[in-house]
Amino acid sequence: MKKVLLTGFDPFGTDVINPASEAIKQLNGLIIENVKLITVEVPTVFHQSREVVIEAIEFFQPDVVICVGQAGGRTQITPERIAINLDDARIADNEGQQPIDEPIIENGPAAYWSTLPVKRMVHQIRKMGIPASVSHTAGTFVCNHLFYGVMHYLSEHAPHIRGGFIHIPFIPEQTLDKSAPSMSLNLIIMALKRAAITAAHEQEDMHEVGGTIH
Amino acid sequence: MKKVLLTGFDPFGTDVINPASEAIKQLNGLIIENVKLITVEVPTVFHQSREVVIEAIEFFQPDVVICVGQAGGRTQITPERIAINLDDARIADNEGQQPIDEPIIENGPAAYWSTLPVKRMVHQIRKMGIPASVSHTAGTFVCNHLFYGVMHYLSEHAPHIRGGFIHIPFIPEQTLDKSAPSMSLNLIIMALKRAAITAAHEQEDMHEVGGTIH
Amino acid sequence: MKKVLLTGFDPFGTDVINPASEAIKQLNGLIIENVKLITVEVPTVFHQSREVVIEAIEFFQPDVVICVGQAGGRTQITPERIAINLDDARIADNEGQQPIDEPIIENGPAAYWSTLPVKRMVHQIRKMGIPASVSHTAGTFVCNHLFYGVMHYLSEHAPHIRGGFIHIPFIPEQTLDKSAPSMSLNLIIMALKRAAITAAHEQEDMHEVGGTIH
Amino acid sequence: MKKVLLTGFDPFGTDVINPASEAIKQLNGLIIENVKLITVEVPTVFHQSREVVIEAIEFFQPDVVICVGQAGGRTQITPERIAINLDDARIADNEGQQPIDEPIIENGPAAYWSTLPVKRMVHQIRKMGIPASVSHTAGTFVCNHLFYGVMHYLSEHAPHIRGGFIHIPFIPEQTLDKSAPSMSLNLIIMALKRAAITAAHEQEDMHEVGGTIH
Repeated sequence: MKKVLLTGFDPFGTDVINPASEAIKQLNGLIIENVKLITVEVPTVFHQSREVVIEAIEFFQPDVVICVGQAGGRTQITPERIAINLDDARIADNEGQQPIDEPIIENGPAAYWSTLPVKRMVHQIRKMGIPASVSHTAGTFVCNHLFYGVMHYLSEHAPHIRGGFIHIPFIPEQTLDKSAPSMSLNLIIMALKRAAITAAHEQEDMHEVGGTIH
Repeated sequence: MKKVLLTGFDPFGTDVINPASEAIKQLNGLIIENVKLITVEVPTVFHQSREVVIEAIEFFQPDVVICVGQAGGRTQITPERIAINLDDARIADNEGQQPIDEPIIENGPAAYWSTLPVKRMVHQIRKMGIPASVSHTAGTFVCNHLFYGVMHYLSEHAPHIRGGFIHIPFIPEQTLDKSAPSMSLNLIIMALKRAAITAAHEQEDMHEVGGTIH
Repeated sequence: MKKVLLTGFDPFGTDVINPASEAIKQLNGLIIENVKLITVEVPTVFHQSREVVIEAIEFFQPDVVICVGQAGGRTQITPERIAINLDDARIADNEGQQPIDEPIIENGPAAYWSTLPVKRMVHQIRKMGIPASVSHTAGTFVCNHLFYGVMHYLSEHAPHIRGGFIHIPFIPEQTLDKSAPSMSLNLIIMALKRAAITAAHEQEDMHEVGGTIH
Repeated sequence: MKKVLLTGFDPFGTDVINPASEAIKQLNGLIIENVKLITVEVPTVFHQSREVVIEAIEFFQPDVVICVGQAGGRTQITPERIAINLDDARIADNEGQQPIDEPIIENGPAAYWSTLPVKRMVHQIRKMGIPASVSHTAGTFVCNHLFYGVMHYLSEHAPHIRGGFIHIPFIPEQTLDKSAPSMSLNLIIMALKRAAITAAHEQEDMHEVGGTIH
């Protein structure tokens, strides 16, 4: 049995819910296709988010870690390919911190690649009729912060554990007052479940068209 | 018992499915909250679409007619407020017709208002957590053609029957290869069901903010 | 010599400039290709806007009236095809008025067509390398209010004068803090000048593809 | 006198012009504020693009290199912050090459930071009334390929030369047939000129809010 740790942020900014934590909540403890899903909610706070996830990794010793965050305005499920060593907050986090142009890890490498099979995950999610594509930027806020922090930890202390990040769209009830795109929570849950199973069983990525022009 | 006739187009352009006909199919024959739903699929063809719906109106004698069409690229359920007397086709219809700058009804009025309570429908759909807003243009293709044609027929021959049009977004499986927004079919079905019940039972619209700046 | 009256709104909502009044200001008094351009600034206020423009029409007796307004978020110059008999304000006007679901003219027709050659104007503007297309909704705020009001006045009292409305995008300096599209003021000015000349000399519209699917 | 080398791509994909080469062409040889601008056109071809620019760097020995590319669909001037070691082509380049998931430099670092003061450049461009913001992804096509390749070369062979990449929007004549946003060529030229002067004279970046949430 493989173990996959899924993490999701609590709400931030002006949003009162975060589809990331809503989605993973419903997957906690699920055993499916020989994969056990474990979930943990993460504060949308620089540093603290990393500590919470690293502690969970040390406690649960999963085979795979997938952090999940909201990317309001996107239309698809987007596994992130790369985390960059930069905190540059456009808004304050949930503790009022707003770092500008600071490295996440002093003297850390400029970037870490996801060690998940991002194109295979996209392929499997799309086979279920759910729009998905690989993203090449996780931004410079807490999502990227956590993604980089986790990849740095795994690289230094647990290279046998694979890790990555998936951004998800708004859910419909968040967009009643704005014309932003959304995706139903149940599709997001199905996509995350499929991503977790795919990542647990497949280390090699697919060779498939999927880049971005710019 | 009230009767609501729901109509939905077959696929057009480069799309192989049309969420409008997919959605109404699943509502056919449903009896709910003292409303009976009757549905009919409509060809995406100028003139013929009108004839099919007018025939269905004459046969079923509904209390309310709601025509449904796809508006690819929109993020919300959008009841249309006004139909205009203009065919101006950017692409050919399913019979290869492409009228340019022709009136739908020679000497007809420039426009007809929906006689459905569009803001109340939006209000009820949003109460279910589904994004919706009133639209002020149904375009100049077959959707508007059918909307205008039906409103003209009702105005001339059956003013006791109320009618209107609702545009719906792409469904997720239509957007696998493009970054367009989408909405799950089951949300669309729930929204159309609620719109039909609302329209059947309420003639008066609500007085609520909902216009568009431009 | 033909006379064209161009009108432009003052700033509204949270904007501190309005490209409509900025643009027309620079065209005032211009004589070009046997057309004289006259301009008037209009308050973004229900009713008062109509009164100001009707007074200017009566005073100047132009051959053509073109009202100009900002449509923030659009990417192109968009001559409007149709004005609808509806005030439905999402925000208050510059006098604090916010009419909801009121007719502009009690018992007026549902809509008036622009009497300008909208496709020819689009064609001529695009020939200059400036993006343009016909729009089928001027919204339900003061822009549509003025457009409808002017068309109603012309229809009733001066059917020999042709009239219409053109929406223009933000200009670049309005979008420094948002990722909205914009168009340079000088392109807007060139486009409006060309539109005015085209409308002055040509009554017949072109038969060219240009409709909208929805 | 400082020397800035500006490079611009030739047209690619279905476009017949590339605003990048159009813009830099008009800056060639310009001496302004004690900065000399030198320009070179670059083929939109993997590998060859790098070779052309590296050769120009070796020949001209500039103080600063700024590569410029088109990002169709963006609304602003966007200095790129980071180049990643990945070729993943969604379309073929101008020689028919379409690398998928290949490193640009075997065993190169995951990413290089721009060594230009990207926020200061944005600040100075916005002071001219031209929309600009920092971007955190240059995509995975030839733009990012060249950006990474140049930064790798500078890092290895000429660390005293600073370098980076700026993405620019479509220009209006490219968008006549699509509703994409655009920016006038003269604004792009002004922005690039200001960016070059800023980069030539200022090594330190500003500490200003400018990150992206995701």
